[in-house]
Amino acid sequence: MADARERFPSLDPETLTPRQGTTAYPPAFRAVCDGRAKRALGTVFALTQFGVNLTELAPGAATAQRHWHEAEDEFVYVLSGTATLVNDAGETDLPAGHCAGFPAGRADGHMIVNRTERPVRLLEVGTRAQADRIHYPDIDLFLERGVGAARCTRKDGTAY
Amino acid sequence: MADARERFPSLDPETLTPRQGTTAYPPAFRAVCDGRAKRALGTVFALTQFGVNLTELAPGAATAQRHWHEAEDEFVYVLSGTATLVNDAGETDLPAGHCAGFPAGRADGHMIVNRTERPVRLLEVGTRAQADRIHYPDIDLFLERGVGAARCTRKDGTAY
Repeated sequence: MADARERFPSLDPETLTPRQGTTAYPPAFRAVCDGRAKRALGTVFALTQFGVNLTELAPGAATAQRHWHEAEDEFVYVLSGTATLVNDAGETDLPAGHCAGFPAGRADGHMIVNRTERPVRLLEVGTRAQADRIHYPDIDLFLERGVGAARCTRKDGTAY
Repeated sequence: MADARERFPSLDPETLTPRQGTTAYPPAFRAVCDGRAKRALGTVFALTQFGVNLTELAPGAATAQRHWHEAEDEFVYVLSGTATLVNDAGETDLPAGHCAGFPAGRADGHMIVNRTERPVRLLEVGTRAQADRIHYPDIDLFLERGVGAARCTRKDGTAY
């Protein structure tokens, strides 16, 4: 990875091109992430055990559909703006400097949304487990990931 | 952990009491971390797969002795102030918003130092491997950690 070697072992994330939106979900569930831009910081340094994203949420955008992981710990730190955590307990404002954490296997679907009219910046950290199962309490979606394969299905296991 | 339950799943790190300095090293090597204050953010949320520290370095303080891990990926993001990365390549200034990453097994000893006269704040992320061996190129120290046991020795294996 030429990109990584040139910058090793430090970098200004602004020099990376962000990835806009998501195509991981079936089309009907993608809109919530249209205003999400991610810079993948961990992979640039050849990290393989956890991922780190510098994520910017435009007004109205979310990090993901509300979900929880069977196998991967997750952590979020708000760098600027005010984010809103949505989980089973309701909504909690997270101003800059606040953080949130979601241990693997805790069945509390969560997402971070920007309910304000200014951009929100987050650092997101997540383990890279070899296999995982991701649950989405609000929508008819289930994601199973094994070694080298990811599969989005309806909750009854049928394909999209 | 009552502390974790009360705050779950989000918190203002300012509400946590920082841990000052380190006692993990033999006494002769501790001074470099005297001005280091850490708030352990991952453990508060019961995360076990990686650790997250909000670390403040007073002028002159460092995150650690210069080291590298055989088993654990590490990542650092500068929140405020200007940090200096010290590694085999020399010294690199990391202003707020810059980051650095150190994959497991890369034999390039590194530490982050505050060479300025103002505090530096960092987010530090590191995998929690079950076992690890940590190398210190500048000093006569070797650290081996297995399940539930850590052992600091001289490089020839003799005890401190």
